[in-house]
Amino acid sequence: MEFSVKDIAEKINGQIYGKSTIKISGISDLKNAKKTDISFILSGRYLKDAENSEAEVIISDSLDKINKKTIIKVKNAKLAYISVLKLFYPESESLEYISDKSSIGKNFKKGKNVFIDDFVVIKDNVELGDNIYIGAGVYIGSNVKIGSNTKIYASVTICDKTVIGENVIIHSGTVIGSDGFGFAEDNGNIIKIPQIGFVKIGNNVEIGANCAIDKGAFGPTIINDNVKLDNLIHVAHNVEIAESTVIAAQTGIAGSTKIGSHCIIGGQVGFVDHINIGNFVKIGSQAGVSKDIPDNSAITGTPARPIKELRRAEAFMMRLEELFKKVDELSKKIDK
Amino acid sequence: MEFSVKDIAEKINGQIYGKSTIKISGISDLKNAKKTDISFILSGRYLKDAENSEAEVIISDSLDKINKKTIIKVKNAKLAYISVLKLFYPESESLEYISDKSSIGKNFKKGKNVFIDDFVVIKDNVELGDNIYIGAGVYIGSNVKIGSNTKIYASVTICDKTVIGENVIIHSGTVIGSDGFGFAEDNGNIIKIPQIGFVKIGNNVEIGANCAIDKGAFGPTIINDNVKLDNLIHVAHNVEIAESTVIAAQTGIAGSTKIGSHCIIGGQVGFVDHINIGNFVKIGSQAGVSKDIPDNSAITGTPARPIKELRRAEAFMMRLEELFKKVDELSKKIDK
Amino acid sequence: MEFSVKDIAEKINGQIYGKSTIKISGISDLKNAKKTDISFILSGRYLKDAENSEAEVIISDSLDKINKKTIIKVKNAKLAYISVLKLFYPESESLEYISDKSSIGKNFKKGKNVFIDDFVVIKDNVELGDNIYIGAGVYIGSNVKIGSNTKIYASVTICDKTVIGENVIIHSGTVIGSDGFGFAEDNGNIIKIPQIGFVKIGNNVEIGANCAIDKGAFGPTIINDNVKLDNLIHVAHNVEIAESTVIAAQTGIAGSTKIGSHCIIGGQVGFVDHINIGNFVKIGSQAGVSKDIPDNSAITGTPARPIKELRRAEAFMMRLEELFKKVDELSKKIDK
Repeated sequence: MEFSVKDIAEKINGQIYGKSTIKISGISDLKNAKKTDISFILSGRYLKDAENSEAEVIISDSLDKINKKTIIKVKNAKLAYISVLKLFYPESESLEYISDKSSIGKNFKKGKNVFIDDFVVIKDNVELGDNIYIGAGVYIGSNVKIGSNTKIYASVTICDKTVIGENVIIHSGTVIGSDGFGFAEDNGNIIKIPQIGFVKIGNNVEIGANCAIDKGAFGPTIINDNVKLDNLIHVAHNVEIAESTVIAAQTGIAGSTKIGSHCIIGGQVGFVDHINIGNFVKIGSQAGVSKDIPDNSAITGTPARPIKELRRAEAFMMRLEELFKKVDELSKKIDK
Repeated sequence: MEFSVKDIAEKINGQIYGKSTIKISGISDLKNAKKTDISFILSGRYLKDAENSEAEVIISDSLDKINKKTIIKVKNAKLAYISVLKLFYPESESLEYISDKSSIGKNFKKGKNVFIDDFVVIKDNVELGDNIYIGAGVYIGSNVKIGSNTKIYASVTICDKTVIGENVIIHSGTVIGSDGFGFAEDNGNIIKIPQIGFVKIGNNVEIGANCAIDKGAFGPTIINDNVKLDNLIHVAHNVEIAESTVIAAQTGIAGSTKIGSHCIIGGQVGFVDHINIGNFVKIGSQAGVSKDIPDNSAITGTPARPIKELRRAEAFMMRLEELFKKVDELSKKIDK
Repeated sequence: MEFSVKDIAEKINGQIYGKSTIKISGISDLKNAKKTDISFILSGRYLKDAENSEAEVIISDSLDKINKKTIIKVKNAKLAYISVLKLFYPESESLEYISDKSSIGKNFKKGKNVFIDDFVVIKDNVELGDNIYIGAGVYIGSNVKIGSNTKIYASVTICDKTVIGENVIIHSGTVIGSDGFGFAEDNGNIIKIPQIGFVKIGNNVEIGANCAIDKGAFGPTIINDNVKLDNLIHVAHNVEIAESTVIAAQTGIAGSTKIGSHCIIGGQVGFVDHINIGNFVKIGSQAGVSKDIPDNSAITGTPARPIKELRRAEAFMMRLEELFKKVDELSKKIDK
């Protein structure tokens, strides 16, 4: 595939500073780009990298001049490069295919263009929408529903009664709908509480690799529309994550905790059970969150506190040695 | 299925306050219950939720009156609701079935009512007891023994020589018996130490989704009776976890560390290698445990310290700003 | 298999203190050894264990006398016991075998002695070297290359375009080449950035169970020669880990961060994105690393600081109560 600078600039509503006739055959970041690739610069900070890049043509939303380069200036470079990416890597259309090495249960319903790869197991009463990709070795329990345009990559395990929306992506190794961790004590014995709920996943959700999302004890564990989860995340029973919240890798959320919408949550964060996190909350990596957090907070640390307060406390801590010395000196002065 | 309040009260040794003839067709928590569901209240804290619940009949161990509701009063509401759960969701009996899409090795021994789903691989010299469920895509290495009434959910990987007891549950994606992380240095080269041990799991153990339990370097990694592990837990080579210890998600235990019995360990806790944790120890979430801990301790923080001591130190820390000011004032007074 | 003490001493260049004719039929650690096993002592600290061991013959690099035992004295006991391990547990030779229950794509190239177990899926244009083991249920995407003498254990998922070197070991449940976690914002909407890179793994790399290694957004995520990763580790897109670095379980590395060579990194460590860690850096467990770290540093804590500095600050913190008291006393003295 090959496009001219002019073609690309039209596609992304950009203005050309330089040669519009250059032919572009790929896209890459500044470092990995070849001479015939188009590249992009996301901030002036990378000017040096841009100058040193092999790429002759660079998309930018801040600069209209880089030494010897042709620039396509746009409003938002990140969105523009996504558009160009899709030009060079158009999404492959879903094909109608059911491997004869798969195992399909009773009462299976499916839409158009559903692809089911080898060694997939689909139990009874499963319903799939249109344009769905089910990778090799995926397990889908009974009474599962999956909406249109969803991709379930190889080696995912989806337990009974899970409901998945449209345009969802679930990466390999992830388990959806395992039992919640619920026990009662009976005279020193630990008795399992049967977990009879399920997992409900909204539209446009992405879930990374090797996550574990438990079903509800009763009713659903809920992951709402536009939520994005990174790899190795733990979501316990009856957790609810509101829409458009983004959570980085290895974070864990204990039972029945509610996370608000539009939150940005770092990696390796831990949430105790039964708390409520507001909307538009930002939480630093490795924070330990042990109580309700109001809307629009920015917190970090263990136990998590407002970032400013924590930074202030840390600054005082770093001056402790100085304080000890000063008190010693005062003490000596007084004794004199 | 339908039961009267009288039927249920008899089943759970409860006393009825209200109408004994109401017909119940399901069980749910207060929030999700429908009119014909029975529900339960675990503490007076949820009184409001109980009053607002659709459920007409509520199990309680503390209250005998809730506005307009029929109450079944019992000694322990949590145990009672487990009993009622089992009434409505009786455990499905294990069926005698071996999928012809599975692959079974030589010298395979098994008891009665063993269910082996599609794409299961069982290597040579494997022994299974009675009433065992092996989910789709499970891998069982050679010389593995699994006790009766055990459930191995879909996509679990069990490596050679693993020994698993009775009434065990292992959730999807978990790996039992991978190599321990052992290396020796030889003139700057990193040499792998072959890991020739195995994993031994007792009775009534439950292991969550996507855990990784390494085999011993020599001899066993041991998970004793009644231990409950949540999701995404790491157990290194030659760790031993004593009976009835409960560990929350994403905790990691380094090599050869021994954890006592009846411990309650939070999520995201880390244990260094070669330490001994006593019995009846409680450890807060995200703690970093770097030395031996005596019986009956309650610790938290990194490095982990007695909870009271840590809380006390934190309280002083929060007053640091005040202390700096006070010392400044003293200093000025003296200078005067 | 049986070897005399003399045979073994010759094999490991050891000097015998005791009986050279004893017949040895196995190897074990001091605690698990039987009378006919050879064992080893790695430091004088374990002298008591050595004396109490059933083993009659012990390999040591520090002692030439232990009560009633025959000693084989060597230069490096750890390396010697690896040699003896390999005597008793010779590596099984790789066999030429492709299961007829596997699924192999078009244009498949492979060397000699390649073993492909049941329910393996290999997509188009895959190239395997010699002496390769592919465990049951492994998924290998299209355009993947795997070097000779590599072992991929059961239930591993390897996505398209991954390049794996020679003598690599990848443990069960691990996912290589899932999408990186990259999004752009467009008027409050979260837009996925297509991830078109791949993962490149060098020679002599070992990766533990249930890890998640994302492919690059563009170009590769790189794990260089001799890197050893433990279980449940997260490696984000475009991370690069230089040679001979060892990382313990549950550590997470955010996008584009570079880790130097010969680093030793503890468990549950978190690295933010886009930072550079030097060579020969040691990082304590649970550290949170949020900025560039120079060569030869030893750091720990969150935020990570030089270990000595942190220990010093902690010592002052532990004396805070004392300081508050002292300031109170000074204050009283002054007021008098």
